[in-house]
Amino acid sequence: MADAKIYTAALLIIGNEILSGRTTDANTSYIAGRLNALGIRLCEVRVVPDIEAEIVDAVNALRARYSYVFTTGGIGPTHDDITADCVAKAFEVALEENAEARRRLEERYAETGIELNEARLRMARAPAGAVLIDNPVSAAPGFQIGNVFVMAGVPKIMQAMFESLRERLVGGDPLISRSISCRLPEGKIAQGLGEIQARHAGVDIGSYPSYSSSGFGVAVVLRHSDRTVLDAAAAEVIELIRDLGGDPAEQEI
Amino acid sequence: MADAKIYTAALLIIGNEILSGRTTDANTSYIAGRLNALGIRLCEVRVVPDIEAEIVDAVNALRARYSYVFTTGGIGPTHDDITADCVAKAFEVALEENAEARRRLEERYAETGIELNEARLRMARAPAGAVLIDNPVSAAPGFQIGNVFVMAGVPKIMQAMFESLRERLVGGDPLISRSISCRLPEGKIAQGLGEIQARHAGVDIGSYPSYSSSGFGVAVVLRHSDRTVLDAAAAEVIELIRDLGGDPAEQEI
Repeated sequence: MADAKIYTAALLIIGNEILSGRTTDANTSYIAGRLNALGIRLCEVRVVPDIEAEIVDAVNALRARYSYVFTTGGIGPTHDDITADCVAKAFEVALEENAEARRRLEERYAETGIELNEARLRMARAPAGAVLIDNPVSAAPGFQIGNVFVMAGVPKIMQAMFESLRERLVGGDPLISRSISCRLPEGKIAQGLGEIQARHAGVDIGSYPSYSSSGFGVAVVLRHSDRTVLDAAAAEVIELIRDLGGDPAEQEI
Repeated sequence: MADAKIYTAALLIIGNEILSGRTTDANTSYIAGRLNALGIRLCEVRVVPDIEAEIVDAVNALRARYSYVFTTGGIGPTHDDITADCVAKAFEVALEENAEARRRLEERYAETGIELNEARLRMARAPAGAVLIDNPVSAAPGFQIGNVFVMAGVPKIMQAMFESLRERLVGGDPLISRSISCRLPEGKIAQGLGEIQARHAGVDIGSYPSYSSSGFGVAVVLRHSDRTVLDAAAAEVIELIRDLGGDPAEQEI
């Protein structure tokens, strides 16, 4: 069993395209799920625009507060890709051309006949002291400095980068989840559910209503790192729903 | 033409279900699009868990900084619905039963034969001095206090609430967007695009790469409140792509 320390993380999403509504973030749920499996809790997500002061401030606020910070976006070749610059500023170190990053770009571009122009060389820059994060998809690496992991925003590349950095992360006991749903309205189970939460203070119990053409429904999600503790609380939720005339169903998480 | 002041907004998403990866946020892109049409720029999004101190701190940080703050989530009848409590704490006012909110719940529940139990009465609470936000879907209202607008997290209800509060918002000139895509790799247009950005400093120019089975592609998104200024920069982007052998295509935003 892993140690009982709680490991926390924040995700910093950098990019005007999310804030303008053009792009829907697809990275949060992936990272949340992967971190949870590693026993690390995603505690905060921030989305900030491509503005240097905003990014620097957010990096510093989050890295002081959480065990790990993951950033997505802003590490490509164009003028609006300023994440590396900002992370170097946040750590008060120089932004340098990283020889290994350059070597990887040269190697990949030689294979594919792409010109390593000045703009693409921007992707070889990393803060002094940073450790690269592999990018098996398109070569241009991410990097880690301190507890901050800088990744691409394109989901396919971000996911490949995350898989390649996973072994650097230390986590605690993963949270196990159970989700119990029924066709009762949330307001009917609310009081009993609050009483179950009070009796099982360590279990994180969430209640998520839904509305569809077939009527009201609610999913109760319970989370804890210990299966026995989790199951005891879940059994009470199932009993509550039955007592109120509902038909509890276990859902896949 | 609206005045030239820049109106800003933040979105605070309250809920463990986003941070656990169970639910993917569907509200950001809706709110971003609607705000943009009103001439209000969404400048930051934060996702925080159902923890009082986190919510209070975030509400206070964001309301001091932006013209408007919108919150989603945490206003239902269960023990984990603590947004109203937290917003009252942030404003240092009492949380009270709101007579009009109670009247609306009583009316709706009388029609539908639902019992107005203690848990459901939690949804009639609002900070002292708050103004209600109509909920045509399920009656339980949101509320506005100062520049903070508290809405439900369920997208259908959130959207109905947003439409009912829209007239309270004052905005400036809406940003107009153009999106020009081509099948060139981002690294090929990067230098020229940076030069266009330098010549049109007031235009927000973003570059969004894509990777698909048919190869590399990039979408260049330009945003400005003045159509003439926007079109001048867009014409240069189209010319750049043509000069590099690409086939620029205008995309719907």
